[in-house]
Amino acid sequence: MPQDVSPLAPDRFPDLPPIAGVRLATAHCGIRYKARTDLMVAVLDRGTTAAGVFTRSRTPGAPVDWCRRILRHGKARAVVVNSGVANVFTGRQGMRVVEDTARTAARLVGCQPREVYISSTGVIGDPLPGEKITAALPAAVAAASPASWHEAAKAIMTTDTFPKGATRVCTIAGTPVTINGFAKGSGMIAPDMATMLAYVFTDAALPAPVLQTLLKAGNERSFNSITVDGDTSTSDTVLLCATGKAKHRRITAARDPRLKEFRRALDAVLIDLAQQIVRDGEGAQKFVTIRVTGAATNRAARRIGLAIGNSPLVKTAFAAGDANWGRIVMAVGKAGEKADRDRLAISVGGVRIAAKGGQVENYDEAPVARHMAGREIEVLVELGIGAGRAEIWTCDLTHRYIDINGSYRS
Amino acid sequence: MPQDVSPLAPDRFPDLPPIAGVRLATAHCGIRYKARTDLMVAVLDRGTTAAGVFTRSRTPGAPVDWCRRILRHGKARAVVVNSGVANVFTGRQGMRVVEDTARTAARLVGCQPREVYISSTGVIGDPLPGEKITAALPAAVAAASPASWHEAAKAIMTTDTFPKGATRVCTIAGTPVTINGFAKGSGMIAPDMATMLAYVFTDAALPAPVLQTLLKAGNERSFNSITVDGDTSTSDTVLLCATGKAKHRRITAARDPRLKEFRRALDAVLIDLAQQIVRDGEGAQKFVTIRVTGAATNRAARRIGLAIGNSPLVKTAFAAGDANWGRIVMAVGKAGEKADRDRLAISVGGVRIAAKGGQVENYDEAPVARHMAGREIEVLVELGIGAGRAEIWTCDLTHRYIDINGSYRS
Repeated sequence: MPQDVSPLAPDRFPDLPPIAGVRLATAHCGIRYKARTDLMVAVLDRGTTAAGVFTRSRTPGAPVDWCRRILRHGKARAVVVNSGVANVFTGRQGMRVVEDTARTAARLVGCQPREVYISSTGVIGDPLPGEKITAALPAAVAAASPASWHEAAKAIMTTDTFPKGATRVCTIAGTPVTINGFAKGSGMIAPDMATMLAYVFTDAALPAPVLQTLLKAGNERSFNSITVDGDTSTSDTVLLCATGKAKHRRITAARDPRLKEFRRALDAVLIDLAQQIVRDGEGAQKFVTIRVTGAATNRAARRIGLAIGNSPLVKTAFAAGDANWGRIVMAVGKAGEKADRDRLAISVGGVRIAAKGGQVENYDEAPVARHMAGREIEVLVELGIGAGRAEIWTCDLTHRYIDINGSYRS
Repeated sequence: MPQDVSPLAPDRFPDLPPIAGVRLATAHCGIRYKARTDLMVAVLDRGTTAAGVFTRSRTPGAPVDWCRRILRHGKARAVVVNSGVANVFTGRQGMRVVEDTARTAARLVGCQPREVYISSTGVIGDPLPGEKITAALPAAVAAASPASWHEAAKAIMTTDTFPKGATRVCTIAGTPVTINGFAKGSGMIAPDMATMLAYVFTDAALPAPVLQTLLKAGNERSFNSITVDGDTSTSDTVLLCATGKAKHRRITAARDPRLKEFRRALDAVLIDLAQQIVRDGEGAQKFVTIRVTGAATNRAARRIGLAIGNSPLVKTAFAAGDANWGRIVMAVGKAGEKADRDRLAISVGGVRIAAKGGQVENYDEAPVARHMAGREIEVLVELGIGAGRAEIWTCDLTHRYIDINGSYRS
């Protein structure tokens, strides 16, 4: 099925500068796709620390089990990702494929298997032909180069219509540091559990526990604040690897004030990638920002935002450009969080539509309809109860979503 | 928008016999629809007891607030339902319309306003022109007749493509008793909170607390076990009214063994109506039964069943007749309930597909694909953990859902 690039895609893939200690390669293994790459390998210099967050699914894939197990060592020398088959619900055979892959990559790179992170994305339940990956690894590792970011982002795509990359430069204690990331994701995207596949690399020199704290916090505000269809993948993975090549002062705590700029830059990269996943949401025609304020807690605000962002009735109304704000009221009501109909206010595109338990007087739908006809929709829900707030990003629900997901395996 | 009747609709509306003490009428008020009825009035004889369950939405409509308030009196003499506008998020004006309607109906019927139950269904947020209802009430009450069940079911429809009715006859302590019900619902259907609009009448003589207990239990197994789109309405209401005209022995407790047959008949009516709502799910082409067994608890089984039934990826696969069982694994995983990948087994159409953490050996997809090409799909998920079980009914997610909900207000 040929896929047009999402109308919400960025103009182009950003220029990702090399990061000292990171080399990338891609290959065509023929796992499922013809005439495109389906394997990405990142080779990392000795001393690279690692952090990761993973799906909270109770039926995770073998690669997720593997990554969780090795994460406590906090070291990474290679990342191997294939697209086409997810290696989920594949029994003992699935874990064997992961272990074979880790062993082969470790031998080629010269490290321990527990320093090799592995992800797979694609169809659930089909066996992953691991021998195709191990056969392709020697040439890939040999060819790894510092400049292959765009190619790496393309190799991990499944129903994605464009590769997703982001980069920021900042300083730690005056020393320049770079953060690059790439991600994939388009359907089976839901927050409140974990994320999709995203790989972020930096030359910062940070111990694994510091990285882990920063990643967890940033993940909440980025990948855990997006939704395409409310369906949580069995394979969601975000990895953050720090090569330590930047010669800044030693940092030992995530709260170190010298990390302020880095934290902000890392969050920016994560949010950038997360928003690109929404912009490539299956069938997406509109990018929707839902801001919730005045909730009892931040958590309540997030749940209300997600109830709106996951509602098929709200999303089909967005698709139609229909300012059907009543459905937003419905979604607030079903979220299960404290809400008071008579204090609730709803605005779309900066225009207050409803407040004090009803539509505002002399409400003029025309400017709202104009706003909703565009590519970017902004919704503000004010609960008027407390100080909790959240920002959620989602997309509309269109015919294309059904086309894509009715024919994914065929 | 002309709407073809759902391919899952029953052949015809069932023959609902008269119920002593119940008279029905319909009218065209012109609230929103042209050339069809939009008002249903049930007039009930003195002595009728009432039970009700309502949406758990935090932003319920004024009619729901009203019904909740009067329910403690447990008496019903009239039920007034309009379609077209939901009278939700309509501020103080919305409650005034409800009170005016109740007062007018009470005067015409000769009862207290608190014996008049009111529901509204349709667009949220638009003001309901109450004067059109009060103007139509005198003629409607005067014309009420025991034989208008089919007309009553039609008057409360919104995006429904067929009217929904059900009837059962049983005995209480040897005395024949009839139960009739009708319902509406097609979109914004989600369980775990409450239901859609459904009105059930019987000539049984049961005190309101007994009715309430029976209704609550039956509601769990029927309306709370269906989902079309996971979106919970602000107006969900199920009413059960008992006129007491059947001259059976006095019953004072819901657990009375003489109610066994009645309980079963009531459940059958509720399940029949609930399944008809799914069969008229917006855009539905397939009726799906999801049985979950072996869960930690019944509640866990229900949550897992609903996670499957609400997953847009599962529902689009159903629509395409694609035996993409990996998505069922995904949905089990995201439900948040205890699950063990290696004990989980999945069958579709009676064919075991996956077990022990992977696809079964020599799995033949052909019979499963044939089953999924039909109108009725059966999914069995065996958790292998405990004795919890549940049965959930849902439909597929098709292009028609998006068409309907992109243009509902236009």
